[in-house]
Amino acid sequence: MRLSQSNRRILMARVPQGLPTPADFSFDEVSITPPNDGEFLSRTILLSLDPYYRNVMKNNPIYAERLVPGDVMIGETVAQIVASRHNDFAVGDYIAVRNGWQEFAVSNGQGVRKLNPARAPLSANLGVLGMPGLTGYAGVIVLSNLKAGETVVVSAATGPVGSTAGQIARLRGARVVGIAGSDEKCAYAINELGFADCVNYKSGDLVAQLNRACPNKIDMYFDNVGGDTLAAVLKNLALHARIILCGMIEAYNMATPPPGPFLGPVVGARATMKGLVVYDHLHLMPELQRVVGDAIRAGTFHYREDISEGLAAAPEAFCRLMRGDNFGKALVRVAAL
Amino acid sequence: MRLSQSNRRILMARVPQGLPTPADFSFDEVSITPPNDGEFLSRTILLSLDPYYRNVMKNNPIYAERLVPGDVMIGETVAQIVASRHNDFAVGDYIAVRNGWQEFAVSNGQGVRKLNPARAPLSANLGVLGMPGLTGYAGVIVLSNLKAGETVVVSAATGPVGSTAGQIARLRGARVVGIAGSDEKCAYAINELGFADCVNYKSGDLVAQLNRACPNKIDMYFDNVGGDTLAAVLKNLALHARIILCGMIEAYNMATPPPGPFLGPVVGARATMKGLVVYDHLHLMPELQRVVGDAIRAGTFHYREDISEGLAAAPEAFCRLMRGDNFGKALVRVAAL
Repeated sequence: MRLSQSNRRILMARVPQGLPTPADFSFDEVSITPPNDGEFLSRTILLSLDPYYRNVMKNNPIYAERLVPGDVMIGETVAQIVASRHNDFAVGDYIAVRNGWQEFAVSNGQGVRKLNPARAPLSANLGVLGMPGLTGYAGVIVLSNLKAGETVVVSAATGPVGSTAGQIARLRGARVVGIAGSDEKCAYAINELGFADCVNYKSGDLVAQLNRACPNKIDMYFDNVGGDTLAAVLKNLALHARIILCGMIEAYNMATPPPGPFLGPVVGARATMKGLVVYDHLHLMPELQRVVGDAIRAGTFHYREDISEGLAAAPEAFCRLMRGDNFGKALVRVAAL
Repeated sequence: MRLSQSNRRILMARVPQGLPTPADFSFDEVSITPPNDGEFLSRTILLSLDPYYRNVMKNNPIYAERLVPGDVMIGETVAQIVASRHNDFAVGDYIAVRNGWQEFAVSNGQGVRKLNPARAPLSANLGVLGMPGLTGYAGVIVLSNLKAGETVVVSAATGPVGSTAGQIARLRGARVVGIAGSDEKCAYAINELGFADCVNYKSGDLVAQLNRACPNKIDMYFDNVGGDTLAAVLKNLALHARIILCGMIEAYNMATPPPGPFLGPVVGARATMKGLVVYDHLHLMPELQRVVGDAIRAGTFHYREDISEGLAAAPEAFCRLMRGDNFGKALVRVAAL
């Protein structure tokens, strides 16, 4: 493996106002830091782009990670170890590690997962076999009390969280209805992900569309977006519905949180809403990888990736993600395998 | 028992705009309907005033009962049977029955509870030993998964629902903090209901007041009001908090439901919100009456009533209730015992 002589990085230049733009980011180039005892140096191969980064960019206290202007952007990555002074990690190992938006980074191994490239494409470890997949999996398996035959609705249905939640629910015998932002995404959800139906929230009255797509109403909703979408779901709840609150993409772009939906329907439906944070469920990662890995190999589970080429493409790719213009798991290829 | 020759009634004259006013009601006087076979006639002694009537006045489809202008106002009452052609009910029996806002009504006995005036004051069957008490009891006992030592917050703390929820939580070993609308109510919650603290939501920043009153944050919140109060609680949640959504008094006065709180904190706290409808828990009525009845006799459970005299006082008393100007369970004495 040939090392470049420097480490190119992308920094948060300023806190975005509303939707992020490429001008909110800056580039620099520094020398590579060598690892100390108990550390290793890895080279970033793939960078995962996830909506919650936008919330961290506000220096939101709910996250362990913080960002202030001038910091290297955070992010989960797939990387390969290029120098090691750590007993458990060897040069050549493939890992999932939080290198952020840069070509090289040093780690002490904490929170790092070793990856087996023979088992699944490395990129899947940032999507359906990684933290997004675990989020969808834990929401359905741990929190939702799902029963076969129930109607499940999933927003951001073609992304890695929503597509995992929806497909796991389908594999458990639910009737799954997606919500997505284009007819093309909806066709993919029905034809590839095996959802019973999918509604385009940009095509008019979402309350009425959900009412038509869910004749037995909604027993479980996996919410990735909050906002008007959540409000429309609440108007279509079945008795004893469960709502998994996972992310509020809409609010991430706002300096002040917007109001939420009127909760009267939650009372009327005797519904339950639960907050989901994936870090509570890390022990399920091996189970996710077995269940979803097997289903991928059996051809009963599908995923899609939206890969941008080169670290320099990351800012614009992230802005597209936050506008909902990506289609599939947003990734940046930082280096060739 | 002497019968008057007519039945005086109060009707909904029109759907209120915002807070109700006495002009939204009208009076009439009709002849008394005699009971048919399988029915009985009862005379109303006490009328219960409950905030949800305001929601029924909007012809809200979530209720089994509906009201359109010209209908007799609905309501739970304590009454005494004055004529009976029903095998299970005899003249002289005291009952809890939904006579509404009128002096006499005929019933077929469905949903009617017989009352024992030797066991508890008849009025308590409309409050802490009736549907409001059952609401508070079921929320704490069935839905909240309460553990001793936890911090519990209750809004509308001195009303029959809130005071039952709070006192049951206290008897189960919780530290209970009330939210009420005057310093006098707060003093009552602390000194009579045995709450650890009580904050007056009209005295400035509720988020900061709750933060001071709940140094270990809020493990369980019994919500009777929704709106800004709920939003302030969400900013003080402990990890794995439970929120029982029971009523949204604020919204009852509005033609269009207001937005709810931003739900981001529910995710961060891994909290659970559950809708409570008392009709799901009617089987617990004997348990409520035993537990709360025993505690009242033991002097460890208290309640307060706000009684207006005469059926004609009902409209203004109901308007006071909806403004939050009552203090204790709102009742109207329609006839002497």
